[in-house]
Amino acid sequence: MKEKNIRLTIAYDGSLYHGWQRQENGLTIQGIIEEKIQTMLGQPVTLIGSGRTDAGVHALNQVANFRTRSLLGVDEIKRGLNSLLPDDICVKNAEEVPLQFHARYDAKKKRYEYLILNREEPDIFKRNYVWHVRMPLNTHVMSECMAILVGQHDFSSFRSSGSGNTNPIRSLFVSSLYGPADHGLLRIVIEADGFLRHMVRNIVGTVVEAGLGKISADEFRVILESKDRSLAGIKAPAQGLYLVKVEY
Amino acid sequence: MKEKNIRLTIAYDGSLYHGWQRQENGLTIQGIIEEKIQTMLGQPVTLIGSGRTDAGVHALNQVANFRTRSLLGVDEIKRGLNSLLPDDICVKNAEEVPLQFHARYDAKKKRYEYLILNREEPDIFKRNYVWHVRMPLNTHVMSECMAILVGQHDFSSFRSSGSGNTNPIRSLFVSSLYGPADHGLLRIVIEADGFLRHMVRNIVGTVVEAGLGKISADEFRVILESKDRSLAGIKAPAQGLYLVKVEY
Repeated sequence: MKEKNIRLTIAYDGSLYHGWQRQENGLTIQGIIEEKIQTMLGQPVTLIGSGRTDAGVHALNQVANFRTRSLLGVDEIKRGLNSLLPDDICVKNAEEVPLQFHARYDAKKKRYEYLILNREEPDIFKRNYVWHVRMPLNTHVMSECMAILVGQHDFSSFRSSGSGNTNPIRSLFVSSLYGPADHGLLRIVIEADGFLRHMVRNIVGTVVEAGLGKISADEFRVILESKDRSLAGIKAPAQGLYLVKVEY
Repeated sequence: MKEKNIRLTIAYDGSLYHGWQRQENGLTIQGIIEEKIQTMLGQPVTLIGSGRTDAGVHALNQVANFRTRSLLGVDEIKRGLNSLLPDDICVKNAEEVPLQFHARYDAKKKRYEYLILNREEPDIFKRNYVWHVRMPLNTHVMSECMAILVGQHDFSSFRSSGSGNTNPIRSLFVSSLYGPADHGLLRIVIEADGFLRHMVRNIVGTVVEAGLGKISADEFRVILESKDRSLAGIKAPAQGLYLVKVEY
């Protein structure tokens, strides 16, 4: 049988998982999808994701690919996987792509969104889906900070340690704040050609410190230019973060 | 110390609980709140809810009361409980009320809402918060059915068995369908002077059968008038149901 390359578009609620990447111990998104593909096709596969997401982080459209010699069509693969997967993971699309397509190496652009609930009372139904910030945030200052990030920069200030020596320069095409809407919901959108470890969460944590009045937009710019992680703010919690789109 | 009667307004996500009512085995909302009150006040209390909710059913404003001789003020009780309770239960308000106030006997009116997601694709983030109905629903016919229920009726057709011999006559003040909005979300609102066992879920299940074209609005009226549970439709699943308001 001819080898085929199957590209999946996947949504998941990361609340109950130890992130995307397969682990020896601990339930992961990659691990469980690989297991279900094996159940369905009767052969082990390696599922290549566009990138890792941390424990608790969600995805609306993660992209991944795997190679198989199975005769099953893409519709059967989609339906079969959805019937086997738990209901916090959903295969939204399955399609055959050229053999050389690689979900990680070929990704050109990614879009993340981060949700903050800014009001005094928590929303118990959103506890796994937003970062609840009780103190009033100055969204004007936060928007100024977000705008500073647009363009090509060295993002070392917003990179968590333990991420190796990869080039810290990335280009941000979109970096915006929307809201408040829906009783205090703020939405941060960042689109870039790639992301460093914890980059979105470190940016959001620092932007929130600006929103709380702890730093000014000018100081935010100095932090970016310093390339010094120790100057930036806290890392925002995982549950507000969503991988929204991957472009190839 | 003088005995006080404390009235709580409580929101909870019912997903992980065996319903409101305390049980020997199984985590319940009443059970865990009583336990936390005891931890806080150092004495056991009985928490009287406005009524039970089933496993998986949510509440935005459940009302409950308990008596205590504690010196703690209502603000301390609210803050103390919220620091002890898990983050899927939230005490939204605590106030002192006359000693004779009884959350169940004194309830005059309750409002329930039921959420249906009517579209082909599931929303994995709402799996515990809506009933996902894939087939297209005729909301016009559903609204007609809802309107038939307004007024005083014998609701035996929509009462689950095992609910004893209470009077099956109830008055519905509001019975409406809203939507679709937000990519397929339908909202059913029912306000009444009281509810029989599983009454909202049995009504919603039957109204959905009308929306699917299995019965007409006229047949829905016949089902109501028959007072025969076996003629009505299925019981809608718990996770779409919310206790929204209790009036005294």
